[in-house]
Amino acid sequence: MKVIPLDAVEKKKVNLEGAAGAWKQLPLGKEDGVPVYSYRVFTVEPNGHTPYHSHPYEHMNFVIEGEGVLVNEAGEESPLKTGDFALVSPGEKHQYRNSSADKDFKMICGVPKEFE
Amino acid sequence: MKVIPLDAVEKKKVNLEGAAGAWKQLPLGKEDGVPVYSYRVFTVEPNGHTPYHSHPYEHMNFVIEGEGVLVNEAGEESPLKTGDFALVSPGEKHQYRNSSADKDFKMICGVPKEFE
Repeated sequence: MKVIPLDAVEKKKVNLEGAAGAWKQLPLGKEDGVPVYSYRVFTVEPNGHTPYHSHPYEHMNFVIEGEGVLVNEAGEESPLKTGDFALVSPGEKHQYRNSSADKDFKMICGVPKEFE
Repeated sequence: MKVIPLDAVEKKKVNLEGAAGAWKQLPLGKEDGVPVYSYRVFTVEPNGHTPYHSHPYEHMNFVIEGEGVLVNEAGEESPLKTGDFALVSPGEKHQYRNSSADKDFKMICGVPKEFE
């Protein structure tokens, strides 16, 4: 059993190509003994975004705070706000963008632990 | 790809023995095509709780709002508040209790999809 506040988790800059103003935390992952899934948290600054890419595993999201958009394979944008859940299936091209001018966009992004 | 606000998800009373004042939503589950994991949300009313039990799969929690406690195998209570993550490993006896007198306690509880 483990309990950890998000604020106590180290925050690292995302250095992937195509990312801008994005930060990653790993509140529950392999080092904590998760059996199946890892919970990461991404914080995207105003005007920031994650890479527009695809990979063979899913994302399962919950928006903790802020406003953003989820871009799909066709380049269409779905709005995301606090309290929204989202599923990006394996192989789907996607990108998360902060759509606010002055507030961080923060979300849980769950993945199979092999890809944390 | 799917986006759904938590407020749009049907809420059902938890009728398990040992549960009181607890409600369940399933924003992302098997019907949505999740590959591995399901995200449920439990809302526990003031003075409410989930069963004190164990099972052969884990819980991965994020507290969306409110204040509660997570009871462990020894009966000890760990406080849980908005923004906290928690892991209950497979086989660990556990219970979630709302510790506030007047506010709901609401949390994500992720499980392997077979146990949603």
